[in-house]
Amino acid sequence: MKAAVLYEPNQPVIVEDIEMDPPKEGEILVRMVATGVCHSCYHVVTGLLTPPLPTVLGDEGAGVVEEVGKGVTLVKPGDHIILSWMESCGHCIYCVQGRSNLCLTGSEKEEGFLPDGTTRFKKNGKPIHHFATVASFAEYSVIPETCAVPIDRDVPLDKAALIGCSVTTGVCAATNTAQVRPGSSVAVFGAGGIGLNVIQGAVIAGAEKIIAVDLLESKLEFARQFGATHTVNADEVDAIEEIRALTDGLGVEYAIEAIGTRTTYEQVLYALRNGGTAVWVGAPPREPLSLDPGVVFWGEKTVKGCCYGSSRSRYDMPRLLALYRASVLKLDELITQTYRLEDVNTAFNDMLDGKVARGMILL
Amino acid sequence: MKAAVLYEPNQPVIVEDIEMDPPKEGEILVRMVATGVCHSCYHVVTGLLTPPLPTVLGDEGAGVVEEVGKGVTLVKPGDHIILSWMESCGHCIYCVQGRSNLCLTGSEKEEGFLPDGTTRFKKNGKPIHHFATVASFAEYSVIPETCAVPIDRDVPLDKAALIGCSVTTGVCAATNTAQVRPGSSVAVFGAGGIGLNVIQGAVIAGAEKIIAVDLLESKLEFARQFGATHTVNADEVDAIEEIRALTDGLGVEYAIEAIGTRTTYEQVLYALRNGGTAVWVGAPPREPLSLDPGVVFWGEKTVKGCCYGSSRSRYDMPRLLALYRASVLKLDELITQTYRLEDVNTAFNDMLDGKVARGMILL
Repeated sequence: MKAAVLYEPNQPVIVEDIEMDPPKEGEILVRMVATGVCHSCYHVVTGLLTPPLPTVLGDEGAGVVEEVGKGVTLVKPGDHIILSWMESCGHCIYCVQGRSNLCLTGSEKEEGFLPDGTTRFKKNGKPIHHFATVASFAEYSVIPETCAVPIDRDVPLDKAALIGCSVTTGVCAATNTAQVRPGSSVAVFGAGGIGLNVIQGAVIAGAEKIIAVDLLESKLEFARQFGATHTVNADEVDAIEEIRALTDGLGVEYAIEAIGTRTTYEQVLYALRNGGTAVWVGAPPREPLSLDPGVVFWGEKTVKGCCYGSSRSRYDMPRLLALYRASVLKLDELITQTYRLEDVNTAFNDMLDGKVARGMILL
Repeated sequence: MKAAVLYEPNQPVIVEDIEMDPPKEGEILVRMVATGVCHSCYHVVTGLLTPPLPTVLGDEGAGVVEEVGKGVTLVKPGDHIILSWMESCGHCIYCVQGRSNLCLTGSEKEEGFLPDGTTRFKKNGKPIHHFATVASFAEYSVIPETCAVPIDRDVPLDKAALIGCSVTTGVCAATNTAQVRPGSSVAVFGAGGIGLNVIQGAVIAGAEKIIAVDLLESKLEFARQFGATHTVNADEVDAIEEIRALTDGLGVEYAIEAIGTRTTYEQVLYALRNGGTAVWVGAPPREPLSLDPGVVFWGEKTVKGCCYGSSRSRYDMPRLLALYRASVLKLDELITQTYRLEDVNTAFNDMLDGKVARGMILL
């Protein structure tokens, strides 16, 4: 079966035939139907993220259960599912508190492997790793059953795939992590695949002022389509000054970082008014921040890390699909370009050029 | 009248006679009865905090209203009051949201002055500033009426004075800012005047495990008296390893910094388990932190600045006195040494040596 494999950082992703073992106990075999092109995967290509290589990339997908291993009870063959890249074991201290995005089973297992410490992928007898557990850039994947979120069969799987990462991370960063309140002001740094969903999360939460900040006019145009009330091109003006001018000099109540640079990680703290909440959603830069602690202290600001939008996959993902059915959540408009798996490197380039809201690979 | 004035950083505080103008509109004249010896004042002496000098120090006091200016309605002569160093104007966007600790009237006025931009203190015709608006290291002070919290006359004013800063900041850092939950685990870095009150705040909130961290055995002994279930001498062992060993390897749910050093500002993030909340209560170090953003991001941790314990003075201070009356809040045990105003430099030294839980100047 075909899969997109990264062998070394800063090399093209290779689409090739690899071998796959059948699902073991508690695992399922998924036939992938659609998988989104995500910046997290590109962070692996550039070496910002360093999971073990070689690896099958892909962290956002949807498909159909083909086969289940021993003891599987949560899904059955034929089920349509969204793939969640975080296990939800249901029993650890995080799952029982309704914080399954921090599931101990998922967060404590070794990166690039399935929970039993082995891989199902191999080529010429050598193991190939599973990026983000779900490894969705492939015709088939084997995943733990606790990473499967069953959904109704009427939802097109290319739209459902978006819920697997970018939509859930972005929308829930606004609704769950930041807990944006009706009538409030929100600044969103970055209008890419995550940022656009943070924007629509802020819309859904009832924010009155949604200020999108980016460097590319094409992305700011997407931002307006997804509900930004104001846009700031940080290449042309001082973003912090603009945000203050738009908020009676005070700054916003919520400032959400959806890029992952050192500059923007720091900027969100200055975009905030006193008492406000900053959320870091973009994958963190590797170099340390140089942070003036007084900015947080004197203004009694809150900074929150955001892992998967503080979501509970099996609870939030079906709710997001319900909002899509109700025409509240935009999914159709996100997929502005589709690709074959063979075109994965082109898809990354289009993403970097700001040509797409979200690229979707159809298998 | 006598006051303790700092003319230059790193010089002794001078106790001397100074002149004072009567209260203007919206202001009141307070006869100070007791004023606590606080590290914030000492931060001015060392130059970590840089309000305009010369200044009458003192940010934690209680006294009796002697005289009221024109238009004053919130208190009358004879009222016993706690002095709050943050105005509570009642009408700004923060006050109306129940966040009067961020009152715009207070936070936007120029440091060291009363709200009209002048001072009431002077010596030989030259103005002397009001530290923290209340300038309580003096026999009398003039303050805005919105800084006065009226209390019942049966409460001894030396005990009430503690509520003016350290007790409210510390207890409410646990109850309001961190929102410590019953049965939870809390690490408190620093067992000084603030840290001991964070500890008793955690006790009041029902925490099960309260781990106090300090470098001085004398302070750790105080910590145990105020409710710490475990103590860690960070001079002898690795505090983070100890905290993890005490919490099944996970770290604590809440880590509260009550010192104000770069090291401890960073350490609290590592003492936390995933999903936990760190609170910075100690006055922030002036040099920037070098912060690994991944620690906050991947663990979905929350960092909160804490200004005056997220308190609403006129709401929380009477409640704290009620807890004292009910023998839930320890105040008597905090005052381990009293001083005359003339002994203010000795009082600072005793604080630095860890000899006192809280020193109290009686006027």
